[in-house]
Amino acid sequence: MASYGIIENFKTKKNPSFLGKAAALAPLLNRHPVRPTRLVEITETHQVVQSEWQVGETEGRRHDVTVRTCGELEDLERRKLKKGDRVTLDFGNHQVGYVSFHVQATGSHFDAPAYIRMKFAEIPCEILEDSSDYHGWISKSWIQEEYLHLDFLPATVKLPRRYAFRYMLIEVLDTSPKYALKISEPVCEYVSAVEMDSVPPLHSGDALLDQIDRVGLKTLMNCTQMVFEDGVKRDRRLWLGDLRLQALANYCTFRNYDMVKRCLYLFAGETFEDGRIGACFFHEPEPCVDDTYLMDYALLFVPTLFDYYEASGDLETLQELYPLAMRQIDICLAALDKAHLVVDKGEDFWCFLDWGEGLNKQAGAQAVLIYSIHCGIRMARVLGDEERAASLSRENEALKKAAVQAFWDEDLKLFVSGQERQVSWASQVWMILAQVFDRETNRKLIHRTRQKNPRIHMVTPYMYHHYIDALIRCDERELALEEIKRYWGGMIRDGADTFWELYDPDNKYESPYGSCMVNSYCHAWSCTPSYFVRKFGLR
Amino acid sequence: MASYGIIENFKTKKNPSFLGKAAALAPLLNRHPVRPTRLVEITETHQVVQSEWQVGETEGRRHDVTVRTCGELEDLERRKLKKGDRVTLDFGNHQVGYVSFHVQATGSHFDAPAYIRMKFAEIPCEILEDSSDYHGWISKSWIQEEYLHLDFLPATVKLPRRYAFRYMLIEVLDTSPKYALKISEPVCEYVSAVEMDSVPPLHSGDALLDQIDRVGLKTLMNCTQMVFEDGVKRDRRLWLGDLRLQALANYCTFRNYDMVKRCLYLFAGETFEDGRIGACFFHEPEPCVDDTYLMDYALLFVPTLFDYYEASGDLETLQELYPLAMRQIDICLAALDKAHLVVDKGEDFWCFLDWGEGLNKQAGAQAVLIYSIHCGIRMARVLGDEERAASLSRENEALKKAAVQAFWDEDLKLFVSGQERQVSWASQVWMILAQVFDRETNRKLIHRTRQKNPRIHMVTPYMYHHYIDALIRCDERELALEEIKRYWGGMIRDGADTFWELYDPDNKYESPYGSCMVNSYCHAWSCTPSYFVRKFGLR
Repeated sequence: MASYGIIENFKTKKNPSFLGKAAALAPLLNRHPVRPTRLVEITETHQVVQSEWQVGETEGRRHDVTVRTCGELEDLERRKLKKGDRVTLDFGNHQVGYVSFHVQATGSHFDAPAYIRMKFAEIPCEILEDSSDYHGWISKSWIQEEYLHLDFLPATVKLPRRYAFRYMLIEVLDTSPKYALKISEPVCEYVSAVEMDSVPPLHSGDALLDQIDRVGLKTLMNCTQMVFEDGVKRDRRLWLGDLRLQALANYCTFRNYDMVKRCLYLFAGETFEDGRIGACFFHEPEPCVDDTYLMDYALLFVPTLFDYYEASGDLETLQELYPLAMRQIDICLAALDKAHLVVDKGEDFWCFLDWGEGLNKQAGAQAVLIYSIHCGIRMARVLGDEERAASLSRENEALKKAAVQAFWDEDLKLFVSGQERQVSWASQVWMILAQVFDRETNRKLIHRTRQKNPRIHMVTPYMYHHYIDALIRCDERELALEEIKRYWGGMIRDGADTFWELYDPDNKYESPYGSCMVNSYCHAWSCTPSYFVRKFGLR
Repeated sequence: MASYGIIENFKTKKNPSFLGKAAALAPLLNRHPVRPTRLVEITETHQVVQSEWQVGETEGRRHDVTVRTCGELEDLERRKLKKGDRVTLDFGNHQVGYVSFHVQATGSHFDAPAYIRMKFAEIPCEILEDSSDYHGWISKSWIQEEYLHLDFLPATVKLPRRYAFRYMLIEVLDTSPKYALKISEPVCEYVSAVEMDSVPPLHSGDALLDQIDRVGLKTLMNCTQMVFEDGVKRDRRLWLGDLRLQALANYCTFRNYDMVKRCLYLFAGETFEDGRIGACFFHEPEPCVDDTYLMDYALLFVPTLFDYYEASGDLETLQELYPLAMRQIDICLAALDKAHLVVDKGEDFWCFLDWGEGLNKQAGAQAVLIYSIHCGIRMARVLGDEERAASLSRENEALKKAAVQAFWDEDLKLFVSGQERQVSWASQVWMILAQVFDRETNRKLIHRTRQKNPRIHMVTPYMYHHYIDALIRCDERELALEEIKRYWGGMIRDGADTFWELYDPDNKYESPYGSCMVNSYCHAWSCTPSYFVRKFGLR
């Protein structure tokens, strides 16, 4: 199902002062050259063997691939590449940056342009996928593939675009019968606003946990660019839900408070005309809010701001953005129905919660509202706005009561959502985070959810984050750790160098886009194991 | 049949002084912006109708296409181009230059890169051809097609490569469901070392002849770049055979003597180690002779130099390059067999004369040698080298005698060539130009050739040039004019904006490359009608 919103005659409100603050906080990116570690051959396998890659699906066709070393980097420039020849470079880990390499002709003088194709792959199977097979609903332009003619040789190819990748394929589409190509000096200028050195290693005593933390840090570092990007291959921009999780992990790791502040001011710098904060924000080429409103994302501006204040102590920013945070709550409160319930907008792209076919969002949205108001109350108290704190408390009681009345199924002892009374993981998790019930009831609820395992399950690490958070809030720290190791550890077992946008252990070829060719394999919302293990000392 | 030579461990001899002279003569290119005149729709038709295009073949599939106006240039930026949409711009005539255009997003903020394909076509059917169908032996890299991602919009796309085209296709491969593209301000910065204004129009009183002259001038102008290029879409470099014809046409039209001088000094500036002049010379990125030797091309350095002297009066250049010109003759004389005949090297790429399957080159090569020696004798006399003139005269008599003895078939009353005693147009034409017989005998021979119409016919305008030249040398000026109008007029009737590399009125889909997708449709060796009509006053 295609999920996007378009607003005709979209009107926005700009706050130049906020945008100015955001601009002043623009980071200088660190740049490091990264060279490939080896030449590899990636081939399709049909038998699934331990230690092999099992990722990716194209229009229903599953790619199980094997990555085999076939040469050292030094071998590269010895190879004479003729029409149809390919080399695949392994850059050793997931990189984000700008690629250059040197191409020379060997044989007679080049008597025709060289024509080459390059493909950049976050995971190995992307190398084998045929872009022409992609027919999903989001743009095929996200596939990192380039065609290039070189009229003069030798040439230094400096690709102007930024790529997110570990593997780089170079295929010679043609030279001429008279000459071949030699490629040398491939290098990626890696970019990030933060440095790995600034974070002390975890040393938890648990190798898997240490690895999960390292991969999480790498994921966050890669996505910390001119803003907190959601994914570095695809989207490459601010999404509010992602920002919140990136910020949480950032406070325990890179501690780049200015980056969070910059992102908050960007979202605040251009809103919908009525003050609603957009779900997504473009920082390039000019700051610009997207015409997508997601109720949960807008509400999560409240905890994102408050988390920032708690982590940084920056009261000035809290004060300045407080009215806008409150406005998000007010807008949602004003839109409730007579029963004090969030109105279900069904299949529209109105509330996110999770990807996953058919998830009803009504109960989850209600819970996010309650959750955000909790946070709003604490914020109001910090700022001495007791009147607002009191009124929000009253609202929240009413919201909780309405939630239980409408969504709690006493027979199932689970929350349901929407007219169809759908049972989903998301509804239970968010109702726990909203503290609609007391801790003990919540603890029973999460266990009951695990036991009944609703068909409408969790698909994204974003939703899994909230599940882990719920476990911790229910004092199930051991279980939280176990689940982190199962879920994020599963990605590592499946070959992740950085954590993925989507991971469903039961359906590894899940994609909300019609093909996992455009799934993102370094996606910031999946970086939060580092937050959990470092913040809560999970071991 | 693939026709190219490769020499392992190729050794050359450089003359830095000559290369310095060539470099000092590098032209400043004139640049003019050219805008499209209309938007067109090019569609395949299966019925051949007068005034329709009937050009091109892909792997045996014939493309008959119709070009239909479908909008004015002003309509372009009103079009919202979504995934799969195409526009084809008609730049009004054949252009050589650098293309830029402006792209903006319309709709929501662009939320994915724009991915576009561009194709440049000299003739309309190229727009419809599928590059993936090309499997010929020369490089598919000559197909003028680009794929481009635009990460940020609006963008001014300035394509860095030079294209040769009249039609430009822009296809939107993808945007996203949220936005479309608008394209505006397409412009081609046309480049040439010469200006059309510098040539007075022909005004022959014959509209077709005037048109043939105009198209010839345009062909020559387009190919007059940093050197005399052979074709501006494909090859894009100096070939000696082409240079000679370009120079001849140039003397009657643009009169850019420096360009000819520069090209002569380039060929002289780096030769084979033994002094042989290469058939082909690369002026970019550094001057470099190709490892291809064609006996006829090397010999034609002699008339090319002498023609230059006669046109320009530049005695100094004649003196300086005279030894190298003589060296070409000496090398060929030294390689004759005992019967004073050029040794037939069969299927090797050793002598050009013409494209066309199966043409035996022995007799033609012998004739070119005689022809060049005639010229060498005149050159020697101008320079007072009477001794050389006398020895060359003796050589030529022996060569002519040997030619008649070996190649003249008294029964057929035609020249034959090679062991198989092949009868071709090329052998007759070159023997006439070599003046092996007297004028009257030659006149009868050309008529006999026309009447018998050997199966091994003429394919290229390059060979047709020599045929027309032969007719004129036989005092058949009227017939020459008629043939010019038939052959080059035929290209115009078939839609040529500039004259083509190949044109066989009996097989319009001829290509020596396995597909006419890579044929060149603005090829300098076909520009010589302007030479004939202006030099000889043909009307």
